[in-house]
Amino acid sequence: MSREELLYEGKAKKIFSTEDPDQVRVEYKDDATAFNGEKQGQIPGKGELNNRISAFFFEYLGRKGIPHHFLGTLSPREQLVKHVTILPVEVVVRNRAAGSLASRLGLEEGRVFTRPVVEFYLKDDELGDPLINEDHIALLQLATGEQVTGMRETALRVNEHLSALMAEKGIILVDFKLEFGVNGGGELLLADEISPDTCRFWDRETDEKLDKDRFRRDLGHVEEAYREIWHRLGGEAHV
Amino acid sequence: MSREELLYEGKAKKIFSTEDPDQVRVEYKDDATAFNGEKQGQIPGKGELNNRISAFFFEYLGRKGIPHHFLGTLSPREQLVKHVTILPVEVVVRNRAAGSLASRLGLEEGRVFTRPVVEFYLKDDELGDPLINEDHIALLQLATGEQVTGMRETALRVNEHLSALMAEKGIILVDFKLEFGVNGGGELLLADEISPDTCRFWDRETDEKLDKDRFRRDLGHVEEAYREIWHRLGGEAHV
Ligand SMILES: Nc1ncnc2c1ncn2[C@@H]1O[C@H](COP(=O)(O)OP(=O)(O)O)[C@@H](O)[C@H]1O
Ligand SMILES: Nc1ncnc2c1ncn2[C@@H]1O[C@H](COP(=O)(O)OP(=O)(O)O)[C@@H](O)[C@H]1O
Ligand SMILES: [Mg+2]
Ligand SMILES: [Mg+2]
Repeated sequence: MSREELLYEGKAKKIFSTEDPDQVRVEYKDDATAFNGEKQGQIPGKGELNNRISAFFFEYLGRKGIPHHFLGTLSPREQLVKHVTILPVEVVVRNRAAGSLASRLGLEEGRVFTRPVVEFYLKDDELGDPLINEDHIALLQLATGEQVTGMRETALRVNEHLSALMAEKGIILVDFKLEFGVNGGGELLLADEISPDTCRFWDRETDEKLDKDRFRRDLGHVEEAYREIWHRLGGEAHV
Repeated sequence: MSREELLYEGKAKKIFSTEDPDQVRVEYKDDATAFNGEKQGQIPGKGELNNRISAFFFEYLGRKGIPHHFLGTLSPREQLVKHVTILPVEVVVRNRAAGSLASRLGLEEGRVFTRPVVEFYLKDDELGDPLINEDHIALLQLATGEQVTGMRETALRVNEHLSALMAEKGIILVDFKLEFGVNGGGELLLADEISPDTCRFWDRETDEKLDKDRFRRDLGHVEEAYREIWHRLGGEAHV
């Protein structure tokens, strides 16, 4: 393997090898896609903002005891992470009805849930990331039963911590998507990114959406929304 | 309530009140629908055949200790059942890939599963009966946790018994859908119907479909397929 090889280019990030096979470099792109790739565009500044926001969230969750892949920020749009094998399961936690769940179950957007709802989706763009259950995960051997339990429990802990953090910043954490990976030692680690691309954030006072829904629904001021999240988290004003 | 009142007319059956509030009369229709009502038609003889086939399966499962709603056959297309409150959850058990699961997960039709897959669907025609998980069931208060466990366990027991029975008749039980209801005493009972409308049956030798897929996919000989199931179960030749 050459010193720096593009291992994978996804919709929002590029993954490069490093000298250490246990570490990869992630480059955050400004590219944005929605509706399973049907809608494509650019959000100038998104790469830098998500790189910083995601780093912030992983460090915060690490301090709360959540095992994760993040190692450090390398540059405005690059970070170093532990190389993991991503489990092809997207884990979604929802505190309120929004997006696909609202339409799927006929619920009014914004309806508050008394208990968070955890969902698993098959990470497969061609199939449109379908909702799956634990029997499907076992059938397709996507993860072991222990990993499923670990993902669910960790996702609920992440929800507790991120909800509390965002509440302090005047923001409602409506829902979010997590990905998990397994390292060489078989350890389950929170991986991928946590950003306005992967969370729904609503301003507590105005209900204004501060996330990718601004892009999905052509609400305008997309970059400003991402920047607002970064500022609320205490990020430097010039970013 | 008048002595005989139409309580509900569904796609395949009519439910009438009886003198006893704990019992209802079910009238099986020849009407057939598919793809969430988009395709409609008639299968002459289906009402009579499903009335008999469903009665046969419920009596068989009753002998195996499965609590159910069936009380007795009243006429060629009518049966008497215990009046229950149907839980708005359709429980599907699958032994092989077929139908919506095959397309949903990109699996080849007919692929054999090493363990049966259990799925819950929200019984809501307007929403297109979406797949749901146990968190959605709790969110929408469709059933208690105990009822969910009871439905899953009973569905797996039904699968064991029906698979064994059909295997003796040279038929593969590919998958099936169950509905459960609760009676006045809070008891969970297997309800609705079990028939070629609600099961996939394949001939073991020829792989020929002997179920509603013949109607869904315009394969012809629909009534003959239902009649074949009845005959394999030992039903009288003149029905
Ligand atoms: N620590 C990691 N090690 C290896 N791959 C990772 C890690 N974190 C995230 N990935 C993967 O990097 C890929 C690129 O990210 P992204 O552009 O978001 O892709 P996608 O288009 O699949 O959403 C994704 O498949 C993601 O699962
Ligand atoms: N024992 C029962 N008591 C009350 N309702 C029942 C019972 N068994 C089945 N049902 C309900 O009878 C209705 C009529 O059946 P069907 O024509 O198959 O309706 P659908 O169009 O909803 O599939 C269904 O809603 C079914 O759930
Ligand atoms: Mg991604
Ligand atoms: Mg029905």
